[in-house]
Amino acid sequence: MKLLRYGLPGQEKPGVLDAQGRVRDLSGHIADVGGTALLPQQLQVLRALKLESLPLVPGTPQQDLRLGPCVAGIGKFICIGLNYSDHAAESGMQVPPEPVVFNKWTSAICGPDDAVEIPRGSLKTDWEVELGVVIGQGGRYISEADALSHVAGYCVINDVSEREYQLERSGTWDKGKGCDTFGPTGPWLVTADEIPDPQALGMWLDVDGKRFQNGSTSTMVYGVAYLVSYLSRFMSLQSGDVISTGTPPGVGMGQKPPLYLRAGQTMRLGIDGLGVQTQTTVQA
Amino acid sequence: MKLLRYGLPGQEKPGVLDAQGRVRDLSGHIADVGGTALLPQQLQVLRALKLESLPLVPGTPQQDLRLGPCVAGIGKFICIGLNYSDHAAESGMQVPPEPVVFNKWTSAICGPDDAVEIPRGSLKTDWEVELGVVIGQGGRYISEADALSHVAGYCVINDVSEREYQLERSGTWDKGKGCDTFGPTGPWLVTADEIPDPQALGMWLDVDGKRFQNGSTSTMVYGVAYLVSYLSRFMSLQSGDVISTGTPPGVGMGQKPPLYLRAGQTMRLGIDGLGVQTQTTVQA
Repeated sequence: MKLLRYGLPGQEKPGVLDAQGRVRDLSGHIADVGGTALLPQQLQVLRALKLESLPLVPGTPQQDLRLGPCVAGIGKFICIGLNYSDHAAESGMQVPPEPVVFNKWTSAICGPDDAVEIPRGSLKTDWEVELGVVIGQGGRYISEADALSHVAGYCVINDVSEREYQLERSGTWDKGKGCDTFGPTGPWLVTADEIPDPQALGMWLDVDGKRFQNGSTSTMVYGVAYLVSYLSRFMSLQSGDVISTGTPPGVGMGQKPPLYLRAGQTMRLGIDGLGVQTQTTVQA
Repeated sequence: MKLLRYGLPGQEKPGVLDAQGRVRDLSGHIADVGGTALLPQQLQVLRALKLESLPLVPGTPQQDLRLGPCVAGIGKFICIGLNYSDHAAESGMQVPPEPVVFNKWTSAICGPDDAVEIPRGSLKTDWEVELGVVIGQGGRYISEADALSHVAGYCVINDVSEREYQLERSGTWDKGKGCDTFGPTGPWLVTADEIPDPQALGMWLDVDGKRFQNGSTSTMVYGVAYLVSYLSRFMSLQSGDVISTGTPPGVGMGQKPPLYLRAGQTMRLGIDGLGVQTQTTVQA
């Protein structure tokens, strides 16, 4: 299933994409796409629905029908850094001996095609296409063998980053990762049954039509199952938490010379089977 | 007002402390202590209530009546590091040229007197008494002059920290700050009208009856108004967000030799006018 949320910001309703790429309304069956609606038994109930019997939502998704972030009420937006060795190299950093963990403030989360704001005074706003992992059944001290059974599904994330705030402004990376609109999430949450191998997904990102990132989850240093298990040693994972698993090479900071976003540009990014996001940049 | 939440974990109801130190039920007036209930106009409505007319809740708070975290549904738990110069020195670090910002995962938040868990395998679990600032009216690019008008109130926080996870395990501090139960918050949210000067509050923390921390918010490097304004350049602050403003000297890591928590110990900590927390440590 491709679960999604459609409508105006803050007023999104739950939906699902049908075989013809149209949106069907799920609000008669779940309150929203998030939290306990992502538990395995709840997803099983949704999977048993006949999509054709659900109300058809007018409009074409991502054209005249806005999509919100594909998960509602995300409690934790957990990010992994330097998880592709080539990206670590282009950033002038070593692959770490264990995963680098940082945070994206939940107020940064937005829809897949919403405008991305360049913060006031920012000179180093950058892009990062990433595989998002959405937790279904929560847990703590999860074994790597069990880890994928805790995954409800996957989505595209643009881990928008302000490099000066992240790296040159004292302290941890969190300052440059969670500005408003720095977390486009979606277009849809593709349930895990449709993604048999999360470590074999091509991924790409274009700015103004030029391809900058062109990678695959096959070159992740720490894979999805390892990350879920690893993170669960440091916190309880909960239904609707999102893990953004790091970016392949090709970010702006890695260009020679570095190249950053300015207002009026367009990012387009996608991952095999998970859909495409399109954002224009605007000045905050 | 001293706003609080009482009852079993996950089932807390909103309440308020009366002049006799008893809990009065607020559930007829607000859904919970958090989010939009913390907006200035909502607090004004609560302030107009006659507390004696509200239902009396049986039990003595913090004795036979459990208190939950004093804010419900915290969206962002934003922490400031090295914000007391003496604490920076004892940690072997410099006072930073601007505030260090990090994250406490929201799954770490617990009641003021709940047990604190030592993570499996942890050898360096430590304590930090801190002034918590609760956002009322949200905002972005808030001026320092306006900042305190965005504060709903204040509370005690124990910024429990695992120093190995924080400092020796790759990457940012977030790994050692957000383990489950690492965020005791309360006992109550004291509304800002009762705290005329947040920069003049004595604060202390004892472990097993021995005083380790004994400081004052008067020695903060970056004060509350500055922090609210500063953070709002990097994210929208929202109603019910919490800012934990750093700790004075006397943490376990700063002892010679360093001293860390083990299961079966008792932390007691408080801040002038904001109440006292008591936690026993248990093995996770």
